[in-house]
Amino acid sequence: MKKFMNEAGSILTESLDGFAMAHADILTLGGGHKFVRRRTLRPGKVALVSGGGAGHEPLHAGFVGHGMLDAACPGQVFTSPTPDQVLEAVADVDTGAGALLIIKNYEGDVMNFEMAAEMASGAIAKVITNDDVAVENSTWTTGRRGVAGTLVVEKVVGAAAEAGMALDGLKALGDAVNGATRSMGVALTSCTVPAAGRPTFDIGADEMEFGVGIHGEPGRRRDTLKSADAVAEEICAAIAGDFGDVRGRDALLFVNGFGGTPAMELYLIYGAARRLFEARGVKVVRALVGSYVTSLDMAGCSITLSLLDGAALELWDAPVHTAGLRWGL
Amino acid sequence: MKKFMNEAGSILTESLDGFAMAHADILTLGGGHKFVRRRTLRPGKVALVSGGGAGHEPLHAGFVGHGMLDAACPGQVFTSPTPDQVLEAVADVDTGAGALLIIKNYEGDVMNFEMAAEMASGAIAKVITNDDVAVENSTWTTGRRGVAGTLVVEKVVGAAAEAGMALDGLKALGDAVNGATRSMGVALTSCTVPAAGRPTFDIGADEMEFGVGIHGEPGRRRDTLKSADAVAEEICAAIAGDFGDVRGRDALLFVNGFGGTPAMELYLIYGAARRLFEARGVKVVRALVGSYVTSLDMAGCSITLSLLDGAALELWDAPVHTAGLRWGL
Repeated sequence: MKKFMNEAGSILTESLDGFAMAHADILTLGGGHKFVRRRTLRPGKVALVSGGGAGHEPLHAGFVGHGMLDAACPGQVFTSPTPDQVLEAVADVDTGAGALLIIKNYEGDVMNFEMAAEMASGAIAKVITNDDVAVENSTWTTGRRGVAGTLVVEKVVGAAAEAGMALDGLKALGDAVNGATRSMGVALTSCTVPAAGRPTFDIGADEMEFGVGIHGEPGRRRDTLKSADAVAEEICAAIAGDFGDVRGRDALLFVNGFGGTPAMELYLIYGAARRLFEARGVKVVRALVGSYVTSLDMAGCSITLSLLDGAALELWDAPVHTAGLRWGL
Repeated sequence: MKKFMNEAGSILTESLDGFAMAHADILTLGGGHKFVRRRTLRPGKVALVSGGGAGHEPLHAGFVGHGMLDAACPGQVFTSPTPDQVLEAVADVDTGAGALLIIKNYEGDVMNFEMAAEMASGAIAKVITNDDVAVENSTWTTGRRGVAGTLVVEKVVGAAAEAGMALDGLKALGDAVNGATRSMGVALTSCTVPAAGRPTFDIGADEMEFGVGIHGEPGRRRDTLKSADAVAEEICAAIAGDFGDVRGRDALLFVNGFGGTPAMELYLIYGAARRLFEARGVKVVRALVGSYVTSLDMAGCSITLSLLDGAALELWDAPVHTAGLRWGL
């Protein structure tokens, strides 16, 4: 295992320490290393709280800040945060208008966030993201997995919260954006969890995993290495097929790297995916390309199509100032 | 070789096509794929033109836009752009106030940019970056290599050009920022050039290369895998030692990923480097952490310390809107 680390047991806290030092203008650590929270809260705004296992950076801590989350709870690598972490975060950032929990659909995350929701004293609503069309159930998931589309939910709902939308409206908006968003990924290599010290799965030098999960969960099938165009075609066909009818729809096209894939390859995939969606009648009106929802050092990428309408597009465009996503500020 | 590509011969042009589609609000391609240029030029502003071999994305094309470059010329992977490319780019974006060429110190780049400068019809000045303290000469370099510090030069000089500074002033500022900037990198794995199809250098499962270049050039020495703290200490000591006296100086601390290293590890290194520089009396007042000057899919990182004074810090903070770096807009 080749990583910049001191000990596997302290990689998360040491990384969070560096993260908090680098972005002290935006955020602070809360409860030791239990959560990352905005430096300044705005009373009366609904609090947005997310989190999940570490290893997907910048998701979620990198999306704490103006226009996105108020707090994020990082679990150990690929491990759900505890109910205690979520409860403390909610108590810290809920200024009286309630809290919306944004949860990726993994059994541990859902269970622990729900336990926290039951114990919280203020008003709570939940949005569970499940944008991954690759498989219906998975290693740690009943139903579809929540993957890169979670970023889109956090951005759009975050902008609406900033604009003063109440808890019920944000819950409905989050569910709607999740419902309008589909993703699928492909791995060229496995990730390596620091505490395990070896690759999560074996994959041959001429193989790829179609539909891989962001923790290295199996996808639809193992196949021999395909061209970028063939990879993009399979993913775009799966996403468009799952939507049913995409003709004439405005969309954000988001190509996400898993951590070990450089920008040059992501842009090449973006070009291929864009041509393929446009050939299906999609109007690609917004783009995002980069490593935002990662799987440690995995080489691979996912493609996300989000059918954002006019109002949601305005929320996507609204100013955001976080470590991982920033514009207009 | 596992990459998202169709053919090695078309990876650059296909990637540029995707890049231009994703960032059509900021930039366009010029002369086919000869250069990337700002969509809108501002007459009377000095034109900033950079470039170099592809494979270091987002450098340089990702820094074209308001507050940074006017044009960037991408060569084939790890290959200098031709004089013809640079000449066409300069002719296209020089609106009459002259052009400043920002060149990383590699023999091919320096030669080709200088040939273009000699042929150009307008006023031309050059800044050659050479921030890498690892070695004095290298595979393709007489003198020190230009590496991640080039981003700092492009950002600071870009802001000054935007504010109306004339060509002579920009040249002096660029040289001063380069002179106040030192970097050193370390590789955990080799990169793989698409046309070669195999790793550029062999490195054992328990080895790292101290002082590696961004094309995989040899560094100071090969060593066994060290802890993150030990890696940071060696690099910070080399940088601080090269500066001589850093006590009491304001600085930007920039931890740069080489393409295959995830954010979690970069932030851990940032925390370690920050503590080490602060222990030497540096006042770290700005941070940048991410994969900005990459080496294809290499796992590794570099640390850059830039002793920016008050005026240069204001230029660093000035609004920028590019594909790779964005704030305030």
